[in-house]
Amino acid sequence: MKILKVGGGSSINWDYIGEDVANLLKKEQLIIVHGAGSIRDKIAAQLNAPSRTIISPSGFSSTYTDKKAIEVFLMVYAGLVNKQIVAKLQSYGVNAVGLSGVDGKLWQAKRKKEILSQEGSKIKVIKDSYTGRVEKINTSLLSLLLEHKYVPVICPPAISEECEIVNTDNDTATAVLAKEMKCSEIIMLFEAPGLLKNHKDESSIIKHIPKEKIDDYLMYAQGRMKKKLLGAKQAFNWGVTKMYWGDGRVTRPITRILKGEGTIIS
Amino acid sequence: MKILKVGGGSSINWDYIGEDVANLLKKEQLIIVHGAGSIRDKIAAQLNAPSRTIISPSGFSSTYTDKKAIEVFLMVYAGLVNKQIVAKLQSYGVNAVGLSGVDGKLWQAKRKKEILSQEGSKIKVIKDSYTGRVEKINTSLLSLLLEHKYVPVICPPAISEECEIVNTDNDTATAVLAKEMKCSEIIMLFEAPGLLKNHKDESSIIKHIPKEKIDDYLMYAQGRMKKKLLGAKQAFNWGVTKMYWGDGRVTRPITRILKGEGTIIS
Repeated sequence: MKILKVGGGSSINWDYIGEDVANLLKKEQLIIVHGAGSIRDKIAAQLNAPSRTIISPSGFSSTYTDKKAIEVFLMVYAGLVNKQIVAKLQSYGVNAVGLSGVDGKLWQAKRKKEILSQEGSKIKVIKDSYTGRVEKINTSLLSLLLEHKYVPVICPPAISEECEIVNTDNDTATAVLAKEMKCSEIIMLFEAPGLLKNHKDESSIIKHIPKEKIDDYLMYAQGRMKKKLLGAKQAFNWGVTKMYWGDGRVTRPITRILKGEGTIIS
Repeated sequence: MKILKVGGGSSINWDYIGEDVANLLKKEQLIIVHGAGSIRDKIAAQLNAPSRTIISPSGFSSTYTDKKAIEVFLMVYAGLVNKQIVAKLQSYGVNAVGLSGVDGKLWQAKRKKEILSQEGSKIKVIKDSYTGRVEKINTSLLSLLLEHKYVPVICPPAISEECEIVNTDNDTATAVLAKEMKCSEIIMLFEAPGLLKNHKDESSIIKHIPKEKIDDYLMYAQGRMKKKLLGAKQAFNWGVTKMYWGDGRVTRPITRILKGEGTIIS
């Protein structure tokens, strides 16, 4: 069984992915996790609730998620994008079932009561943020679907212990998912051919990252890539043995990176 | 097993419903179907894609659903409302899993290639409408979830044979669902205490409708109620033996109507 994590960039090609997923399923089971960041930002702006970014005192960026932002999140991730992906996969004969982390408490998270935001030289405490860290996975629901030949297509948000709907970091959640499902390989598709030495030069791809030396490569990771690398580090700590990173915009994207066209962490 | 169909009115109280669902589940299995019409209209207007109504030459109203309207539909039904209901039910200990008709081809529909719209004295043919009639239910997915103590929470849209996402009449789809799941009783909650003789007078409730005489009561059905009654008629043709109609705004709404407080069709 593999986990396929697909980013939410606007140039990700789900036709190419769908075709390739149908092929891969002949050989093994698959759980798909997806993002929807770029459409979320667009719809949020249209709904007069523009996405806001918080920078933590340690330098990590995340989305400030108040109640209104959670509503937009539900609309775009669990509604629009998740179901469009499911319909697309179905058109390639993949029996996909879309689930958010809320359904069957699939992704149960611990809500962060307070979040720190660095604003200039000041640190602000934010208390109305609905964000959390996934700690528990409903593995029996996923196993049930997999055993019956369904392909789970999962997206955030997650649900807290108090049944609040909470935003969560998708890469960390994917790492927890891999741990709980005892899955040793993760495929990640995004809008680049792999991790790049120079993020402006797509030919500067890093072909291999030794899993013990992920920290040494953080210097190459721009923006969201930094979180992906840290998510990867967690995944390896929890038993993942190999990660494939590659391009979600090209034909046969999964076949290509399984053959070694992207970045391999192992 | 019963089907609980809850309308999409803004004053429906899901706390009252959630509490009552938790009670009912001690005795029997439940499939929930819900609407989201009032929030859909609000969000559609905010997204500059206001809901438009078509009147068919035979006098029935429906929503004109182009691609943009389908996107709003996905956002509000399958995203925002479905997941908020699931989280609410989870907070009452109900292990709810939200599914749209797209997931696992749960509701497979035949897309209508053309729709007729009466506009003044003219009849217009509409070809870019993504609407269809549910003809097939993935009963094995529902049975699988029910057997494992999950409560399916279902909403439109449906998926066509060609894997297009299509809007569908919720009441007809519920009737097909009852037929395919061999369910003999349907509970319907909406924003009225039952079918009213005078829709402005909530005390004018019709306590009983003989199932053979549904047509005689169409004269009392205003707006959407007409479709509900026709959906009921189909459901009885397909093997349903009893329907309970009642108020989704009050405490213990299901307990009340099972005791006979609403309109019973049998």
